[in-house]
Amino acid sequence: MTNLIEYENSTDEVRAIYDDIRATRSSDYINNFWKALANHPPTLRRTWETLKEVMAGSGEIDPLVRELIYIAVSVTNGCEYCIASHTTAARAKGMSDDVFAELMAIVATANMTNRLANGYQIPVDDKFKT
Amino acid sequence: MTNLIEYENSTDEVRAIYDDIRATRSSDYINNFWKALANHPPTLRRTWETLKEVMAGSGEIDPLVRELIYIAVSVTNGCEYCIASHTTAARAKGMSDDVFAELMAIVATANMTNRLANGYQIPVDDKFKT
Amino acid sequence: MTNLIEYENSTDEVRAIYDDIRATRSSDYINNFWKALANHPPTLRRTWETLKEVMAGSGEIDPLVRELIYIAVSVTNGCEYCIASHTTAARAKGMSDDVFAELMAIVATANMTNRLANGYQIPVDDKFKT
Amino acid sequence: MTNLIEYENSTDEVRAIYDDIRATRSSDYINNFWKALANHPPTLRRTWETLKEVMAGSGEIDPLVRELIYIAVSVTNGCEYCIASHTTAARAKGMSDDVFAELMAIVATANMTNRLANGYQIPVDDKFKT
Amino acid sequence: MTNLIEYENSTDEVRAIYDDIRATRSSDYINNFWKALANHPPTLRRTWETLKEVMAGSGEIDPLVRELIYIAVSVTNGCEYCIASHTTAARAKGMSDDVFAELMAIVATANMTNRLANGYQIPVDDKFKT
Amino acid sequence: MTNLIEYENSTDEVRAIYDDIRATRSSDYINNFWKALANHPPTLRRTWETLKEVMAGSGEIDPLVRELIYIAVSVTNGCEYCIASHTTAARAKGMSDDVFAELMAIVATANMTNRLANGYQIPVDDKFKT
Repeated sequence: MTNLIEYENSTDEVRAIYDDIRATRSSDYINNFWKALANHPPTLRRTWETLKEVMAGSGEIDPLVRELIYIAVSVTNGCEYCIASHTTAARAKGMSDDVFAELMAIVATANMTNRLANGYQIPVDDKFKT
Repeated sequence: MTNLIEYENSTDEVRAIYDDIRATRSSDYINNFWKALANHPPTLRRTWETLKEVMAGSGEIDPLVRELIYIAVSVTNGCEYCIASHTTAARAKGMSDDVFAELMAIVATANMTNRLANGYQIPVDDKFKT
Repeated sequence: MTNLIEYENSTDEVRAIYDDIRATRSSDYINNFWKALANHPPTLRRTWETLKEVMAGSGEIDPLVRELIYIAVSVTNGCEYCIASHTTAARAKGMSDDVFAELMAIVATANMTNRLANGYQIPVDDKFKT
Repeated sequence: MTNLIEYENSTDEVRAIYDDIRATRSSDYINNFWKALANHPPTLRRTWETLKEVMAGSGEIDPLVRELIYIAVSVTNGCEYCIASHTTAARAKGMSDDVFAELMAIVATANMTNRLANGYQIPVDDKFKT
Repeated sequence: MTNLIEYENSTDEVRAIYDDIRATRSSDYINNFWKALANHPPTLRRTWETLKEVMAGSGEIDPLVRELIYIAVSVTNGCEYCIASHTTAARAKGMSDDVFAELMAIVATANMTNRLANGYQIPVDDKFKT
Repeated sequence: MTNLIEYENSTDEVRAIYDDIRATRSSDYINNFWKALANHPPTLRRTWETLKEVMAGSGEIDPLVRELIYIAVSVTNGCEYCIASHTTAARAKGMSDDVFAELMAIVATANMTNRLANGYQIPVDDKFKT
C-alpha cells in the first residue's frame, strides 16, 4: 500500500505544491492521489502542472465538460479511483443525475460501436480521411 | 473484408433504416459502418436505434459535447474507424481546431493519471464514496 | 518491419515446429504470425505449444467455439492481425455469417455493459460472490 | 455509490421492466446492475432490450456459449462486476469447472498472442484479407 | 470466489509443480495465483512453465528489469492482483522507491502519448518502417 | 489527416521546441508525432517537457530500459505509431534482436497472466498488501 504523505509531514517542496492545489481548488482538501504522488516530488509537480493547465487552465471547453471527458476515459479504462474522484468533482461543478446518466449512455454506446467497427474490419470512408 | 451493402442493393428492411439515417442526419451519405452492419439487419436496427437515441435524441448534453465524449472513448480504445468518423462528425457540428486539441489534451492526461492511480494502488478517499 | 522467416530458410529447430504446425493443421500454409515469431525460436516453440494445447488439444469446448472466444478477445483488444486470422480460421471451421454477426453482437453488448458497471460503480451482489 | 432502486420503490415504468426481467429469467431476483440502471429509465429500458435480444433471443449460438463469450470480453476488460455476474449465470446454464478453466486458458492465450502480433508488427496475410 | 488449493490438499501432479515453484524461488510461499490455477492442473503447469522460462530463465534482460516490464503491463491493464504481486517481487529483487516512481512516470507518459498518437491519427514515419 | 507542421513553416514558439528536440536528441530529425502536436503549441510544449524529463532526464533507470518499458505499454495498448517509433529508438540505443524478443515474451506473458488473475477472481495475498 502506498504511503500517503500528509500536509503536516511534507517537505517544503511538496508543501508548496499542496498549497497551490488548495489555492487553485479553493479547498483545503488534498485527496489521496496527490498524497501518493508526493512520494516522488518530480512526479507530483509534473502531474499537478499538467492537470492544472489542462483541467483548470484557460480554454474553450467548459470546466464541467472537461470533467465529463475525464470520466469517459476513466470509465473506459475501468480506473476505480479516477471514476470515484472525478464523478465527485463533476457533481461539485454541477453535473446532475441526468447528465451523468446521459454521459454513461454515450460512453457505453461508443464502447459498443468501437468493437463493431473492429470486428467487421470496416474500411475508413474516403471522406473521413481528409 | 466485410461486404458493404449499398442502398441500391439493400432489402426493404435495410432500406427503411438507411432512409431513417438519411432523414435524421439530413444527408444522403450512408457511411461504411452502417453498410457493414447491414449484413445482419437485427444488428443494424438495434445499433442505429441506440445511436439515434443516445447521440441525436433529447437530452441535456449538447450534441457537440456528445461527439467529444464519443471521441474520448474511441481514442482511448484506439479505434481507428471511430476516431476518423466521429472527428469528422464533430467538425461538422462546429468543433474547432482548438477544441479538438483541448479534447486530446484531456484524454491524454486522463489516460496518464488513470495509470498513476492504478500503479500507486491509491485507496479511494472516503469523501468520494458517498 | 519484422523479418518473416520462410520454411526454405529456416533452421532445423524452426523447421521442426513448422512441420508440426503443418501436420496439426493438415495444411502446408504457415501464416505470417509464425514466420515472425521464428526470429526467436524459444518464443516460437513456447507459443506454438500453448496454442496447440489450448486451441487444438482435447477439451470440452468445441473447436469452433474456441475460435469464437478467441475472436471475442481480439475484437475487444482491437488486434487487427488476430481478428483477420482467426475470423478466417473460424470460417474454415464452419462459422456462418449469422454466427459471426451474433458473435459481434455479444461482444459489442458486453463491452457496453462492462462500462455501465464501471461507471455506475455497481457493488457485486452477495449471491455472485460464492 | 450508486443508489440501487428496489422493486418496491420503483415507478411503473421501471417496474414493468423489472417484471419482464423476472419473466424472461424465470426468477424473482433482480441483480444490482439493473437496480443501478433504474436511476435512468431510458438506459434501463434500452440496455435490457439489447441484452434480452442478444443474450436470450433466438439465434444460432447456444445460450451457454453466449455466456462464455460474454465472460471472455469481461475478463479481457477486467470488469469485476461483469465477471462475477456472468460467471454465476454461466454456471447456472451448465458451465462445469473444466469448461470454465478451458475458457480462461483461451482468453489468456488470445491476450498473449494479441500482443505478440502487435509487437512484432506482423502484416496481415493476403489470404486473410478476402 | 475461486477455491484456493493448499499444498497439503494438492494432488501429486499439483504438488510437483508447487515443489518446483518453491525450489525456483527459494521460498516456501505459494501465492494465491498458483493456488487458484491449481484447480486446472494443465493450466497450472503451462502457465508456470511459461513464467519460469520467461521470467526466471536465461536471457539478456536483467531479472529486475523483467519485473519492471511486467509491472508496466499490469498497470496499463489495471490488474490489481498482478500490480500487487509483481511490485512485491520487484522490491524483493532490489527495486527502490525511486526506481518504482520512475517506472510509474514512464508508464504514465507512454499511456498519455499513445492516445495523442491515436487521436491525431499520426502517420508512421517512413524511417520507422524499416 | 492531421496537418504536419514542418520546421520551415513553424512559428517561433514551435521552432524553439523543435530546436530543443534536435539538441536533446543530437539529430536534426523531427518525427511526425511532434509535427502533429505542433498544431497546438501548448500541447507540444507540455508533452515535450514531460517526455524529455521522463525519458531523457536524470534517473536511476537506464535509458534503454526506459525504452523497453515504453514499448511494453505501447504493445499492450496496440498503439501502432508508438510501437514503430519507440522500437526504432530502442534499437538506436542498443536493443538487440534477442532483447526485443525477450521483451515481447515478457509483455505477452504478463498480458496472459493479467487475465488469469481477473478471470479466477484471485484475492490479493495479505503479504502483498503491505
